[in-house]
Amino acid sequence: MKSGLIVFLIILNMSVYAAEGMWTPAQLPELSEVLEAKGLQIDPVSMSDLTGYPMKAIVSLGDCTASLVSPQGLVITNHHCAYGSISYNSTDERNLLRDGFAAGSFADELPAVPGSRVLVTVAVQDVSNTILGGLPAGMSGRARYQAIEESEKELVRECEKDKGHLCRVASYNGGIQFELIKQLEIRDVRLVFAPPASIGNYGGDIDNWMWPRHTGDFSFYRAYVGPNGLPADPGPENVPFQPQHWLRVQPKGVQDGDFVMVAGYPGRTNRYRLSSEVANVINWRYPEYKIALEGWLAAIMTAIDGKPDAALKYASLISNINNETKNYGGMLEGFAKGNLVKRKQELERELQTWIADHPENQDSDLSAIEALQVLIDESQSRQQRKLYYQLAYRSALLRAARTLYRLAREQEKPDEAREPGYQERDLVRIREQMTRIEGTFDAEVDQQVWRHLVLAYAAIPEDQHVDAFDQWFGINGNSIDTEALDTQLEKMYAGSSLADTQARLDWIGKSSTEFETSDDPFIRMAVALFDGDMKIEEWDKDLSGRYLEARPRFMRSLLTFQQARGRVVYPDANSTLRVSYGVVTGSQPRDGIVYLPFTTLEGIVEKNTGTEPFDTPAGLLRAIGEKQYGAYIDEQLGSVPVNFLSTLDTTGGNSGSPILNGKAELVGLQFDGTYESIISDWDFLQDKTRSIQVDVRYVLWTMEQLGGAEQLLKEMGVGR
Amino acid sequence: MKSGLIVFLIILNMSVYAAEGMWTPAQLPELSEVLEAKGLQIDPVSMSDLTGYPMKAIVSLGDCTASLVSPQGLVITNHHCAYGSISYNSTDERNLLRDGFAAGSFADELPAVPGSRVLVTVAVQDVSNTILGGLPAGMSGRARYQAIEESEKELVRECEKDKGHLCRVASYNGGIQFELIKQLEIRDVRLVFAPPASIGNYGGDIDNWMWPRHTGDFSFYRAYVGPNGLPADPGPENVPFQPQHWLRVQPKGVQDGDFVMVAGYPGRTNRYRLSSEVANVINWRYPEYKIALEGWLAAIMTAIDGKPDAALKYASLISNINNETKNYGGMLEGFAKGNLVKRKQELERELQTWIADHPENQDSDLSAIEALQVLIDESQSRQQRKLYYQLAYRSALLRAARTLYRLAREQEKPDEAREPGYQERDLVRIREQMTRIEGTFDAEVDQQVWRHLVLAYAAIPEDQHVDAFDQWFGINGNSIDTEALDTQLEKMYAGSSLADTQARLDWIGKSSTEFETSDDPFIRMAVALFDGDMKIEEWDKDLSGRYLEARPRFMRSLLTFQQARGRVVYPDANSTLRVSYGVVTGSQPRDGIVYLPFTTLEGIVEKNTGTEPFDTPAGLLRAIGEKQYGAYIDEQLGSVPVNFLSTLDTTGGNSGSPILNGKAELVGLQFDGTYESIISDWDFLQDKTRSIQVDVRYVLWTMEQLGGAEQLLKEMGVGR
Repeated sequence: MKSGLIVFLIILNMSVYAAEGMWTPAQLPELSEVLEAKGLQIDPVSMSDLTGYPMKAIVSLGDCTASLVSPQGLVITNHHCAYGSISYNSTDERNLLRDGFAAGSFADELPAVPGSRVLVTVAVQDVSNTILGGLPAGMSGRARYQAIEESEKELVRECEKDKGHLCRVASYNGGIQFELIKQLEIRDVRLVFAPPASIGNYGGDIDNWMWPRHTGDFSFYRAYVGPNGLPADPGPENVPFQPQHWLRVQPKGVQDGDFVMVAGYPGRTNRYRLSSEVANVINWRYPEYKIALEGWLAAIMTAIDGKPDAALKYASLISNINNETKNYGGMLEGFAKGNLVKRKQELERELQTWIADHPENQDSDLSAIEALQVLIDESQSRQQRKLYYQLAYRSALLRAARTLYRLAREQEKPDEAREPGYQERDLVRIREQMTRIEGTFDAEVDQQVWRHLVLAYAAIPEDQHVDAFDQWFGINGNSIDTEALDTQLEKMYAGSSLADTQARLDWIGKSSTEFETSDDPFIRMAVALFDGDMKIEEWDKDLSGRYLEARPRFMRSLLTFQQARGRVVYPDANSTLRVSYGVVTGSQPRDGIVYLPFTTLEGIVEKNTGTEPFDTPAGLLRAIGEKQYGAYIDEQLGSVPVNFLSTLDTTGGNSGSPILNGKAELVGLQFDGTYESIISDWDFLQDKTRSIQVDVRYVLWTMEQLGGAEQLLKEMGVGR
Repeated sequence: MKSGLIVFLIILNMSVYAAEGMWTPAQLPELSEVLEAKGLQIDPVSMSDLTGYPMKAIVSLGDCTASLVSPQGLVITNHHCAYGSISYNSTDERNLLRDGFAAGSFADELPAVPGSRVLVTVAVQDVSNTILGGLPAGMSGRARYQAIEESEKELVRECEKDKGHLCRVASYNGGIQFELIKQLEIRDVRLVFAPPASIGNYGGDIDNWMWPRHTGDFSFYRAYVGPNGLPADPGPENVPFQPQHWLRVQPKGVQDGDFVMVAGYPGRTNRYRLSSEVANVINWRYPEYKIALEGWLAAIMTAIDGKPDAALKYASLISNINNETKNYGGMLEGFAKGNLVKRKQELERELQTWIADHPENQDSDLSAIEALQVLIDESQSRQQRKLYYQLAYRSALLRAARTLYRLAREQEKPDEAREPGYQERDLVRIREQMTRIEGTFDAEVDQQVWRHLVLAYAAIPEDQHVDAFDQWFGINGNSIDTEALDTQLEKMYAGSSLADTQARLDWIGKSSTEFETSDDPFIRMAVALFDGDMKIEEWDKDLSGRYLEARPRFMRSLLTFQQARGRVVYPDANSTLRVSYGVVTGSQPRDGIVYLPFTTLEGIVEKNTGTEPFDTPAGLLRAIGEKQYGAYIDEQLGSVPVNFLSTLDTTGGNSGSPILNGKAELVGLQFDGTYESIISDWDFLQDKTRSIQVDVRYVLWTMEQLGGAEQLLKEMGVGR
């Protein structure tokens, strides 16, 4: 009998505090007191200065966030944010996804995938008056939409006259406030360092949204500008961008209970939706989307079966659909536990009462809630069409044909009158889009999957159908002749040249007449659908215009009401720069189980099976086995921390965001949330919502272990 | 912004100590010192007295353990151990599985499923000398097997002359020691109380082997005897059994860190197998069984598709196969992490060295390990046949035919010369078996599934085939004419009367000639296979006989070696009464996550979806919502504990075992282990292995909530 007494004591410090909130930098001074009380050690006002430290170092990659970490334009972000560039540079002989990459010198750095940008926010200007000032009362939704769109286009055009900048107008709180965001648009981006996917994507889809987690989700880019210091097209003469500010890296990391912040570009949240909107999402949207997407996925899986080349092309789409359906499932579970509809109903009752008690806030027959509800009902009356017609467009060739024909139609107008997305400034993007199709398209798969989606569309109620689409395929009510459909699809794919990249590109710049007289079946179909689709677009724009009146009215009531109760309200995420603050801490996700705040190197070995996505490189396994922790050991954990949990309020778009300690030093990177946090786009649960970060100590330890990064470490000021 | 500071402190006390060991009661005095040091408050010697408290109250149900808990023969065990009886008494109108059951009075108690037994161990006698004493050296394996079997049969026959008793011979340490176990066999067992399956099986297959857990896995039987106090067939004149001892129930339960014991009848462990046996299990047996069983399961699922009646009949088999494959998967994961082969190899090296240093323990040319290895190699050379031929017999009709024909052949011999299982004492069981088929058999499903299994058999290497079986189906090498097979199967099922219960029963007692001249295709097949099968059986028995020499020799070396190192060794589980001791505690199953030692009522609500297996009765949900904890609240948890974890060393057969505190009072029931414990039949991992128990406080709270149990609670001495 083995004997002996091992006493293993874990003290789980779950000091949870109000971490909810994605604050605009401008709001931070209002929060000075609480920030300082929680652990901010720099002047809170400095956090609102977009031209200073640290905010000037926080950059956008479009869908992700990143940060500048050296005076030479070195940029750190997630591995999954640099995935496209790593993949773009991978070949059979030199598989960077599999083996990772470390540039030996500046000259060895590789071009990022075409279209990559590093966007540095340089100015944010309130343009609410410009946009809303001249709008007459009582105008139609369509007119309001048009007026706002025109103001926005005009502001963007003016702003972009400053060459090398990308401008856009962002709306806050449903349209109460508008800001013109001006960003330096660095177009020469190069890949500097990436760990193998077996580190950067360790755990893959299986561990996505899961804790415990052991993912080394980091990579490095470098931003390059022309010799004159201004943004330039990629070229050998370009030089590293020299930023005014870059983040200091803190190799000591953080401890359980430490104050942390995240600064980044969260994409979209829906925290102020009405209870009826949430109820619809729970009862219709997510369940229905889940079923529709699972059907789509099944069709793809069947179509690629036995076709490894096609499987590779559809891998990214499959992963996205998987991720989406997992999200829907997780959100439905979150809703089921969170009681959100009931809580919203209570808030709405209180708000309604308050409005009644404060008639000065009541400016029409319908209350702000009732007026909004009218539009919500209208949206929902077309939601089946929205989902299934969108999926019925999911032939890559039909989508290409639609874009190309629309471009031809828009190009008949002066540039400023064109639909956003089809202006001169968008041509590069459209060209890229037409080129990229070849990497994600297989004609047989496209045809087979599209067949499934057309049949799914045919099955929805007739009043949700689109006439021109029905006519094209001879759909009558819910009935469709599948044999005729098969023949028609065969003919369409056989008769179209759009599967060829050059053919697609050749259509750019052609006149609408050339489209209308073409006998390419996909072009013909796009032409046939055009008028009907424009009618739907008009309807959508009119509704959007009316939302742009009703939603701000509701939000104004809510804000005034909350203000009266002494509460500060942050606006929903809208891809603009935000700051959240919180604390490093574990959680009790469910009865009987606890998430510890940190994982360690040993957990990597535990999970390792040798098979993707749990195939740690042998060298790393050896180093862990030999406890080569180096400078990055955490004494309390007795190992190097890998990932950690915090109460930070984050969402998609925050990926790659720097995690900052109380001195605004970089201590980690945001990359995911726990399963209990999937719901957080709708509802922030104080006890359960946790963001997942990669610990900077694991980043540095891994770079040392993999080698080839000595110069980079020195550049960041953490070299030996 | 919501604000406030919640400090949530959990101290996880993981005082883990040497809990490995399923000790025979006779070994407990040797462990006195450690038991008292850990927390045993009664005389350790009393635990080894089978006629005293508490051991006389620990009873066997055959596959499960139970305990007497009142002077009126009340017996507590798991819901899943009483499942057959609950199901047996369920009808569409009165669905006890769904609604639960509470007998209003003794008269309302329901008969347990036929074949139910309560077995009270009354004597254990060492019969090693009787069995091994007269065996001459150098006898063949077959002869040794035969001699031992005859001695065992003789001992059992003598023992069972004391009417109302069931006797068997158990072997320990591979055959070093033999004990004659004599048990009072109570045959009138009645169902007294069962919660609804939505409590007793909450979580179902999904939560099987999982933590956190919230299962109310308990039910009550009552043992009845004839008016003379002796076991009797079920009948209205019987009276409750009045035991000498019954367990005291401790309604205060246990706390984290408390000493606990489990007493019960663990079925089978393999803790002393050679490294080569473990390696074979890892590399061949479990992976291959998993594949074979998954194929079998898939065939069943296809066959029952769209047949709800058949689905019901196969539900239990499906659940068993699911459970088995989950076990294989879990064990393979456990092996992958536990390094068991390497540890065993080291032990074997040490043992080999020690044997070489102590030539007095070396009694032949081959070392004990080498001699055993010869037999292991021989077993493994036939392991594919063993698996796939067994599955190829998986037509219910073929199995019935085999049993019936074998019975006829055995009945030609005097009773004492018959194969165990075919003696007069076995006839009742065979009759029950032939009857029970009707509840688990559907001819179309049987045929379709059997077809799959015959084809799987045909695909294994030819040298693993059985000639007579090949001839029957015209299998030639690996080739089989599937069309001919289909025709043959059609004919067999159409031409057999064995699907009829009365027809099966009518074959009992017929002569072998009647079988041999029958034209029932399944009877004919059984006759055709008989000689070949007997040859395999002879081969098996010879091998077993040789194991009965080699295994004890190895175990004797190991025991002497361990004794020399000051270690006490417990024998592998063999369905005899055993005691394990340990401590209530959580665990850290993986990096970054912690299992808390207790779950609470609130976790039931968290998991509840309203859909089976998470469909808690509304009354219970309400009571939890209203915090009606009553007397059973645990102050530290702030709720009623539901399940708890301990380091107790348990396995199948322990299900239903009482968990005893330091005073040997009942504080819970054993019912499962965590996923990390699936491996524990082979390897006990000090840090990870955890048994799962239902807390007695949840048992009592649930009984109060469900109602109708006032009298029972009083009977157990915990009534209000």
